[in-house]
Amino acid sequence: MPLADLEEHTMTLATRTPPTAEEFTDYKRRFSNWGRWGADDEFGTLNFITPDVYRAAAALVTEGRSVSCANPLAVTPAPRNPNPAQHFMRFGPAGSSDYIGVSYHGFVNTHIDALCHMWTGPWDQMYNGRPVSDVTTGGSRSNSVDRWRDGIVTRGVLYDVPRFRGAPYVEVGKPVHGWELADIAKAQGIEPRPGDAVLVRSGAEPFFAANPDFPHTSPPSTPGVHVSALEFLYETSAALLGWDLQEAGGQSEYPARIGIHEVAIPYMGLPLLDNTNFERLAQTCAELGRWEFQLTIAPLVLLGGTGSPVNPIAVF
Amino acid sequence: MPLADLEEHTMTLATRTPPTAEEFTDYKRRFSNWGRWGADDEFGTLNFITPDVYRAAAALVTEGRSVSCANPLAVTPAPRNPNPAQHFMRFGPAGSSDYIGVSYHGFVNTHIDALCHMWTGPWDQMYNGRPVSDVTTGGSRSNSVDRWRDGIVTRGVLYDVPRFRGAPYVEVGKPVHGWELADIAKAQGIEPRPGDAVLVRSGAEPFFAANPDFPHTSPPSTPGVHVSALEFLYETSAALLGWDLQEAGGQSEYPARIGIHEVAIPYMGLPLLDNTNFERLAQTCAELGRWEFQLTIAPLVLLGGTGSPVNPIAVF
Amino acid sequence: MPLADLEEHTMTLATRTPPTAEEFTDYKRRFSNWGRWGADDEFGTLNFITPDVYRAAAALVTEGRSVSCANPLAVTPAPRNPNPAQHFMRFGPAGSSDYIGVSYHGFVNTHIDALCHMWTGPWDQMYNGRPVSDVTTGGSRSNSVDRWRDGIVTRGVLYDVPRFRGAPYVEVGKPVHGWELADIAKAQGIEPRPGDAVLVRSGAEPFFAANPDFPHTSPPSTPGVHVSALEFLYETSAALLGWDLQEAGGQSEYPARIGIHEVAIPYMGLPLLDNTNFERLAQTCAELGRWEFQLTIAPLVLLGGTGSPVNPIAVF
Amino acid sequence: MPLADLEEHTMTLATRTPPTAEEFTDYKRRFSNWGRWGADDEFGTLNFITPDVYRAAAALVTEGRSVSCANPLAVTPAPRNPNPAQHFMRFGPAGSSDYIGVSYHGFVNTHIDALCHMWTGPWDQMYNGRPVSDVTTGGSRSNSVDRWRDGIVTRGVLYDVPRFRGAPYVEVGKPVHGWELADIAKAQGIEPRPGDAVLVRSGAEPFFAANPDFPHTSPPSTPGVHVSALEFLYETSAALLGWDLQEAGGQSEYPARIGIHEVAIPYMGLPLLDNTNFERLAQTCAELGRWEFQLTIAPLVLLGGTGSPVNPIAVF
Repeated sequence: MPLADLEEHTMTLATRTPPTAEEFTDYKRRFSNWGRWGADDEFGTLNFITPDVYRAAAALVTEGRSVSCANPLAVTPAPRNPNPAQHFMRFGPAGSSDYIGVSYHGFVNTHIDALCHMWTGPWDQMYNGRPVSDVTTGGSRSNSVDRWRDGIVTRGVLYDVPRFRGAPYVEVGKPVHGWELADIAKAQGIEPRPGDAVLVRSGAEPFFAANPDFPHTSPPSTPGVHVSALEFLYETSAALLGWDLQEAGGQSEYPARIGIHEVAIPYMGLPLLDNTNFERLAQTCAELGRWEFQLTIAPLVLLGGTGSPVNPIAVF
Repeated sequence: MPLADLEEHTMTLATRTPPTAEEFTDYKRRFSNWGRWGADDEFGTLNFITPDVYRAAAALVTEGRSVSCANPLAVTPAPRNPNPAQHFMRFGPAGSSDYIGVSYHGFVNTHIDALCHMWTGPWDQMYNGRPVSDVTTGGSRSNSVDRWRDGIVTRGVLYDVPRFRGAPYVEVGKPVHGWELADIAKAQGIEPRPGDAVLVRSGAEPFFAANPDFPHTSPPSTPGVHVSALEFLYETSAALLGWDLQEAGGQSEYPARIGIHEVAIPYMGLPLLDNTNFERLAQTCAELGRWEFQLTIAPLVLLGGTGSPVNPIAVF
Repeated sequence: MPLADLEEHTMTLATRTPPTAEEFTDYKRRFSNWGRWGADDEFGTLNFITPDVYRAAAALVTEGRSVSCANPLAVTPAPRNPNPAQHFMRFGPAGSSDYIGVSYHGFVNTHIDALCHMWTGPWDQMYNGRPVSDVTTGGSRSNSVDRWRDGIVTRGVLYDVPRFRGAPYVEVGKPVHGWELADIAKAQGIEPRPGDAVLVRSGAEPFFAANPDFPHTSPPSTPGVHVSALEFLYETSAALLGWDLQEAGGQSEYPARIGIHEVAIPYMGLPLLDNTNFERLAQTCAELGRWEFQLTIAPLVLLGGTGSPVNPIAVF
Repeated sequence: MPLADLEEHTMTLATRTPPTAEEFTDYKRRFSNWGRWGADDEFGTLNFITPDVYRAAAALVTEGRSVSCANPLAVTPAPRNPNPAQHFMRFGPAGSSDYIGVSYHGFVNTHIDALCHMWTGPWDQMYNGRPVSDVTTGGSRSNSVDRWRDGIVTRGVLYDVPRFRGAPYVEVGKPVHGWELADIAKAQGIEPRPGDAVLVRSGAEPFFAANPDFPHTSPPSTPGVHVSALEFLYETSAALLGWDLQEAGGQSEYPARIGIHEVAIPYMGLPLLDNTNFERLAQTCAELGRWEFQLTIAPLVLLGGTGSPVNPIAVF
């Protein structure tokens, strides 16, 4: 729905007030998409990407240039990268080859979360009521990333929070609220549309450059996005959320460890695109004066997988 | 150049005669792109993908649907998959995660070859004269896949050889020659253009379904593409070659182990997209009556890597 | 007990008759060691290795030489090695290092099975009544290999079946029965003793040399040991069973997939030392005219692990 | 030679003076064993383990008990463990199995260094003059760990430095010198003998317990052994050196990064047993009042490998 309507119809977006703990808990009911696209659905909010959305996204390709939204596979050990990716080379007289291995979840590798990644509660259920017993050491029998093998191609919209705030990065204690995303949309001249890939730049790279010793915790205490953003995602019928910094730390008033993950994945069926790098994307958007583009996410076809490392490509 | 001109100007395409061994060897000189885009170039034929090519590719998105060109990551041991990918799951009360490890080169996993993958000769040189001493166990210092981090977005053209031949798949002993690609282009109503992703379907899936016990060898003895296709790629200024079956076996008259690799990568600087799956793509093309589409290849950002597993996405 | 007594007291050993299916099933009751060494025991038949056994084993070191009983870590793909071990090197100016990764269970890598490896039945119980819910993707909370971190040091006895039979290897259809082990002991001048590592050589290496195309199946159809050997192991209070060929194929009359594993591990608590190489050991024994020696098995300390690759060392 | 002679004949041991930088450099000549056991030798100081040494070691087995000298495979990320071992479980109805992968060199996993691990200088030579070009991404063609597949079985002697010093652990700035090892031998009633496994306990576990935030560096700045110990190892004809803390930090006066490694491995051909855990061993020795025992090290048979994770077993 249009932003104007949106702000009248919904609570915290309209009042610019964070949800109470009770309201947050009620998100799981309000924003649930179980059954919305049929009992067998495994696409969740990717269903919002209709043929029209594809076409509109392609129409944004006018400059003829593309930009990666990915960090390099993180092979270097670091506090935020406790299980570094493995990269081994082989070579002989005629050429070279290599092996790459990665536990891509976590806080450094750019990846997409499949809907089997997070559950509604301890050993409870997956999106759309799938049983967690579907998850085995051989892979998940439902809600796995291979369902999305045909890729995610849609309009990407960069919500450049530091630029909006006139700050180098989102600071601790100043999380990105849902209504700020609405404000940024307006400021950037964007009308949120169903099927959008909502890409929230908090400025991970400048944040860590300025705070090299920021202690790593899990769940993260880094700055980032507030649970109130869930309402924005739901009300605007977003297809997915991408972010360079994940959930903002310091939201202990909510009965959740990582509240956005816990609502978005199992209830909304909304994929998360974690640990992106939006620095060059932000520069490109600023240079061109537009914050929308065609975005392609091409998960590896990992049967039964809980997600995939990806290199999301923005095309202008 | 237009097909008509092409056929007049070039030798084997015009005469429909495979190159002699000497002519093949001369490909390394004739088709070399060293220095063509500067002494420091690491993009090779991807340089053909100009902004106009981007735009023309995006203009092909009229249906609003996408199709994967990837096989699943091959975790199941098989003669053609002697080093299966590793997929390990972890799960606990709240959710699941996984590890994926893969030596993606070989004959089963869909991947793109970087220009450090094949050299001009034993311990000789890489594309554009880079020294093979750039290749270390820590990765390659040049011609590595991370150079292409912004993705490859261009027009993809499917050359559906079995459809053209009226056969289920390309047979052993009947390799796909360069002039047949020209014929297929005509039959499919396609004008080859600079920057094209030339995607040659030999019918890998039906071939292996019909020949389940086909012996695996390295280099492969499977049916596929003839070295004469190099001329087609060069003369049409193709950006890359994708194929579901690689080099046709039985080309022992040429002084090469895998002649297309050996010319395309180190001399032409032309990336190869190996082990694709074009079955659903071919169905879509036939259904829509067109064999061109927007193609996005998004290699993982593997610093120093010799390539990347990918899931190429065709958008109609 | 002495062999003479043994043969009088027990059924199939005495009568040289394979157990019926019912008798085999009853093995699970007859040979169960649950509770025998306390409710918390995780050592199983390793409890037979008393200080006296240690001392007697050490007393066998008179020659001053040692022999490995291990195959190399199997990095080469093969039908019997569908998931080859991974060995990756790194090197720089000053030296080299490497990575080794291995799914060591299966039919090629020499390894010891921990007592969490096989269960009494589908999702049923582990040795000594431990619940299979102890097994998680983070490791097993009980019956794991790290319990044996202090190593297994005992008398090893090689039962050289091909030598006894005057054949190069055990043939398909002629499995090694329990009573044949008793015969071999006599022929080799050995009195089986509690705490022995019973090492049965079927001649894996010459078998596969003579039968290079022997089809690999799982469970294996290779020649090897008959379930009747369980009685010998139980009655002689063996500490463990090592073998170069595992269970003999063709025992379909028993309600088991791999009957020795299914009784030895979860009921007897008897570790299996799989995929040994006894060729050089057999030569040494023959040369020295004795088939007993000190044997040391030193499992890696893999917390929660289901076993470990090992290199068992026989010392004469 | 006897300790008394030793102290008369050698310089720094006799004078209790650390070597000068020049004397250290001369170690490479003085202590070189190149050619000592033939031009093809790949056993180095393991040649000191003669049949008599085997027998004498076995004669130490009087108690009938064994103790591991290994740390668990380090799967938990930590500053000292930047590349944690990988342990993945699989399970199904009938049982469980697992995968273990490890870059075992470094500062946490108990492992033995093969003689291809360290070279005489940048891209120079390996022990006994082998060319470093023998080292390939497929493994090393010489001086690799598989040469020692028959295991290392010898007398182990624990040099319990903290006990000797009356301190919980070796402190920074107070490295273990060669003459202190001679003193400890005397104090413990041990005569060093050719073929000994010299096991130096610096007290790694109590050190890290007391200094949990001790910064990890490479080369390590932790307390440990002084390069002067090389003379002790050479003059006593030790077979190998095992240690729970490696080289003492703060030896910058010597022209070496890790001086003991750089002399012991490529010049002496003396294997290093890194990152042992001697806590329970020390308790056992103190309890029994003796610091010698049979020690078995059983490297995995890793063809071309630069070492192996091991679980050294001490038997009393």
